[in-house]
Amino acid sequence: MLLVMKQNATQDQIDDVIERIEAAGFTARPIPGGHRTAIGILHNQGAVDPARFQGLPGVKELIPVTRPYKLVSRETKPENTVVRMGDVAIGEGKPVLMAGPCAVESLEQCMAIGKSVKESGAEMFRGGAFKPRTSPYSFQGLGEEGLKILAAVREETGLKIVTEVMDNETFDLVEEYSDMVQIGTRNMQNFALLRRAGLAKKPVMLKRGMSATIDEWLMAAEYIMERGNDQIVLCERGIRTFAMHSRNTLDLSAITVVRKESHLPIITDPSHAGGHRCQVGPLARASAAMGVDGMMIEVHNDPAAALSDGGQSLYPHQFSKLAQQIFDIHDLVRTQGEI
Amino acid sequence: MLLVMKQNATQDQIDDVIERIEAAGFTARPIPGGHRTAIGILHNQGAVDPARFQGLPGVKELIPVTRPYKLVSRETKPENTVVRMGDVAIGEGKPVLMAGPCAVESLEQCMAIGKSVKESGAEMFRGGAFKPRTSPYSFQGLGEEGLKILAAVREETGLKIVTEVMDNETFDLVEEYSDMVQIGTRNMQNFALLRRAGLAKKPVMLKRGMSATIDEWLMAAEYIMERGNDQIVLCERGIRTFAMHSRNTLDLSAITVVRKESHLPIITDPSHAGGHRCQVGPLARASAAMGVDGMMIEVHNDPAAALSDGGQSLYPHQFSKLAQQIFDIHDLVRTQGEI
Amino acid sequence: MLLVMKQNATQDQIDDVIERIEAAGFTARPIPGGHRTAIGILHNQGAVDPARFQGLPGVKELIPVTRPYKLVSRETKPENTVVRMGDVAIGEGKPVLMAGPCAVESLEQCMAIGKSVKESGAEMFRGGAFKPRTSPYSFQGLGEEGLKILAAVREETGLKIVTEVMDNETFDLVEEYSDMVQIGTRNMQNFALLRRAGLAKKPVMLKRGMSATIDEWLMAAEYIMERGNDQIVLCERGIRTFAMHSRNTLDLSAITVVRKESHLPIITDPSHAGGHRCQVGPLARASAAMGVDGMMIEVHNDPAAALSDGGQSLYPHQFSKLAQQIFDIHDLVRTQGEI
Amino acid sequence: MLLVMKQNATQDQIDDVIERIEAAGFTARPIPGGHRTAIGILHNQGAVDPARFQGLPGVKELIPVTRPYKLVSRETKPENTVVRMGDVAIGEGKPVLMAGPCAVESLEQCMAIGKSVKESGAEMFRGGAFKPRTSPYSFQGLGEEGLKILAAVREETGLKIVTEVMDNETFDLVEEYSDMVQIGTRNMQNFALLRRAGLAKKPVMLKRGMSATIDEWLMAAEYIMERGNDQIVLCERGIRTFAMHSRNTLDLSAITVVRKESHLPIITDPSHAGGHRCQVGPLARASAAMGVDGMMIEVHNDPAAALSDGGQSLYPHQFSKLAQQIFDIHDLVRTQGEI
Repeated sequence: MLLVMKQNATQDQIDDVIERIEAAGFTARPIPGGHRTAIGILHNQGAVDPARFQGLPGVKELIPVTRPYKLVSRETKPENTVVRMGDVAIGEGKPVLMAGPCAVESLEQCMAIGKSVKESGAEMFRGGAFKPRTSPYSFQGLGEEGLKILAAVREETGLKIVTEVMDNETFDLVEEYSDMVQIGTRNMQNFALLRRAGLAKKPVMLKRGMSATIDEWLMAAEYIMERGNDQIVLCERGIRTFAMHSRNTLDLSAITVVRKESHLPIITDPSHAGGHRCQVGPLARASAAMGVDGMMIEVHNDPAAALSDGGQSLYPHQFSKLAQQIFDIHDLVRTQGEI
Repeated sequence: MLLVMKQNATQDQIDDVIERIEAAGFTARPIPGGHRTAIGILHNQGAVDPARFQGLPGVKELIPVTRPYKLVSRETKPENTVVRMGDVAIGEGKPVLMAGPCAVESLEQCMAIGKSVKESGAEMFRGGAFKPRTSPYSFQGLGEEGLKILAAVREETGLKIVTEVMDNETFDLVEEYSDMVQIGTRNMQNFALLRRAGLAKKPVMLKRGMSATIDEWLMAAEYIMERGNDQIVLCERGIRTFAMHSRNTLDLSAITVVRKESHLPIITDPSHAGGHRCQVGPLARASAAMGVDGMMIEVHNDPAAALSDGGQSLYPHQFSKLAQQIFDIHDLVRTQGEI
Repeated sequence: MLLVMKQNATQDQIDDVIERIEAAGFTARPIPGGHRTAIGILHNQGAVDPARFQGLPGVKELIPVTRPYKLVSRETKPENTVVRMGDVAIGEGKPVLMAGPCAVESLEQCMAIGKSVKESGAEMFRGGAFKPRTSPYSFQGLGEEGLKILAAVREETGLKIVTEVMDNETFDLVEEYSDMVQIGTRNMQNFALLRRAGLAKKPVMLKRGMSATIDEWLMAAEYIMERGNDQIVLCERGIRTFAMHSRNTLDLSAITVVRKESHLPIITDPSHAGGHRCQVGPLARASAAMGVDGMMIEVHNDPAAALSDGGQSLYPHQFSKLAQQIFDIHDLVRTQGEI
Repeated sequence: MLLVMKQNATQDQIDDVIERIEAAGFTARPIPGGHRTAIGILHNQGAVDPARFQGLPGVKELIPVTRPYKLVSRETKPENTVVRMGDVAIGEGKPVLMAGPCAVESLEQCMAIGKSVKESGAEMFRGGAFKPRTSPYSFQGLGEEGLKILAAVREETGLKIVTEVMDNETFDLVEEYSDMVQIGTRNMQNFALLRRAGLAKKPVMLKRGMSATIDEWLMAAEYIMERGNDQIVLCERGIRTFAMHSRNTLDLSAITVVRKESHLPIITDPSHAGGHRCQVGPLARASAAMGVDGMMIEVHNDPAAALSDGGQSLYPHQFSKLAQQIFDIHDLVRTQGEI
């Protein structure tokens, strides 16, 4: 933290601020400047909130300097984390494709889609059994029945299962049936859910909140890691901006920053970001060119009859073509290396 | 829903779309225009998602027309809802002030602040026992001990208690001790929590999500109401924008829209929106001039020692002066009437 | 500027950065911390851009500390600036109301509106002769003929005239006919226009850019002041956010910050922020409660026939009532004082 | 336009609205629905603003349906526009790289960078002679001297020149020396400049405004085209969002939408979007994977001594490597085709 004093702050005000900083257990380091004094606050990552110093007489503003996260930080652990589920490894090079319908609708539907995406190169099957819907009148998912269908798809195809968990009541159930539990964008700061995920025996995919900064996102991952689960995959799925031509704005620059700041693998969800079928291919190829560790893509065998998100689901033949494109771009970019 | 066809859509494409709309149980109403055809989709508020029609051949875009909410809509219930807790009534004219510290820290602290804000005209006491904190290393609240302190403040001062509930595990506890349970901005679309709140015997204060549209906010309230609890107070607490000089941007225009669209009472939280002590007074006075039904304001007896949000907490003497200003502005604006 | 080094930056890297800072004519002040070193860059307000240090080896990030503006800063000039046009004074206490149609349409229209708003307490008449329109096919304003109409309204009513100038080609003309020239939101960083405004003999109203930070806004004012014109009125007119229920989101917290940072008077434009007639009254009353120095409000004698922005224009009888409300709220708030 | 009536609108109100629509020269087409009536407004692309109907009794809201642009629309001209400058063609397949320093600093600098980027595959040289700077105290560019340097680089290397024009006063000059004139993000709605650009004999690169919707952007292009200049290149350069980890958020989904809506070529500026050197490569590769028609990239021979934007400029050897990567990705994506 850097505390900037007003130009006309008196020495008494400066001394008082320093005294309060030290009384709170921090170290104060005054930095006299040309026009004003700034005061560094060191060792401020504990339970006490330095925001308290903000309104003191003579104080102009408070500027955070160090990042608040520890366990997820690359400064703590320089090498990449690889998240493993059997023979599937996220963060080891090849992008892991997770494909399937928005919502699990029936065994037939899932089996058909599952076989198709498996053949196209997907390693994981996605599909919601519990669905977060804006409206209480929208289809809310099949629940446990949906989880059983997912398990059947795994049984038949060998695809690993990733599916969303929405609350602690159903966490055990979701954890049992899935290979990776997904925490959705609306729950990124559902701290009870994060804490439970920290005790899970399965990897966790943590989607970025629609309006979360990278700091907030990594701090949400820190909640999980702090409880003991270090198998976390971050998923950039678009942020909310004024631009309404796509459902959300895919923030690809976040990938570069997350990789600098953290050792955790990161994937994208071009389907939810784009929100329109025609957006998915281009955003997926762009993600591949960023070298992401994987992608979630919605695929439906009959999008025009889908119970949710039909407009953004790919047809199986589209996914098949796209998967190959993604692998080819990824291979190319990998051989290219950094500039 | 209005489905707009491309200029060059063929009659076959138009017919196909109409057929699919009707096959899904909706009514299709084609509207030939000067340059293109649009098709109205009627009776589309059921469980089926019309987004599925979006990617069909010849379709340019899908435009929502009717609002998705029902129970919270003023078209359903034209008269204002008043939320009552004993002799406290939110939505009946006088703005209800809810004041207190960000976090419950100790009995002494709360009792001192409670007595002071009561004397200044507050009718409710606010204070977090369970705190949603960005960092797992920040003070997380006193938990049940905090709730007991709140109950003691009620006992002593007669102030009603509003406090945040963060998860279903602690819902019974929070419901038992409080007079109104608060759902925070990060949990606005925590649907498990909303459903539980719908069964609560206490009123619910629903804060707007940091990046929620008004439709999403009202739909979150619809989740609560649909389960049977119609005692809901909406709270505008600032949205996330590019403007970083305040913690969030208080969206006062939301108040006018919510009042047109819904019968539920609406209050503001100038403390969290402003994020700096110097912002709280002006934003509170502006809220009063908008004629809000109440306000949540953070007050701390020693802000520079607060365990959280010290920089935005008012001193008790400031709150005392501000409360009177709020009442005076409100009285004036009420006599002025609409233009 | 504060330059934060990486945790693992070597002493050589630190030394190299310091050397480069000093070679560029700045003063470097290293601040060793618990985990990493930060380096203060002093005297950095000249023509050289310290961003250049950003990519150097070992550098983690660059954090601006001091504000970049000088002349507009309250630290440079502590007392409020009052902008005077004859007997009209903006910044002296009473809010100055500027009312009139979005666009000047005819002499009859303007004269009728002008007389009406004058009677209601407006001191200035607003109306566009040159209109910035998103579409080249929309009504672009009457040009010089419009200016002459404005002058006739002044002649008849005594109202001062504020009207938008869109380019340097027509600046002389607009300057000649008006009492205050307005620079619109789309031109806030039209630097040629700002420089010309700096040479104007008339006061300038500078609207905030739709996505401008307060720093950028004040720097735009600095461009004007640096050329010699210190008669500047800032106008908050709403920012662009994800919230689409109002045309823009009126950022009232900007008023508090601008007043702390600058000595220039500040007004709001509730008409353009709200974008709907029903929003104007509430936002105007909220602005009054913030104690603004004035307001621009669109009034039209026949909104349903207006050539632009009809939906947000007040009827004259509405403005009459609103003006009195604004004065009453302002009087009340002024007697209340700060908390 | 679709005008949605309130549920309880009376037949008289509906009739009155229809009458007013037709009196204004439009066609009104009522669409009775299940709950309410909507009214289509046809032939509304003239000079009259239908927003005027918004506040009429019984009217709930106004929803735009057709796009406002004509000449730039792909519905008007289905085939792609190719912008040609001698043997350089933008929009014909191969991405055109425009590289060079942020600001022209000296002949030596530009010549060195020019030769280098030419060798790396750039076809155009970029460099600002007139610089839009937030601060009046920052380096404002060399002006005409800078233009002469650019011309010398063209002479020596054969690279075409693109440089920013900031105002009409210097337009002739910039037009004379450059091969393509650039209109910057802050001037996207500087309508005087757009009109002048519409008369230019040189192609125009129109950068997207920092908070412009795609409609506003295309309408700005419409201003240029309406005056006769159809040689326009659109440039996505990042939008302003709450996410501050990059200078702006590159909105790649805009590319897909622009290509559907318009026939104009589109490029990106990963340097200004990213704002940090480490962001440029990844965002450039992502842009290549989107199949853009070109890219603007900042290259500096000594970034740490650059007079502006040093922190986001690539070293020449980095650009050399990146250019090859861009071409390789583009070639791959082109052979892949759509899905």
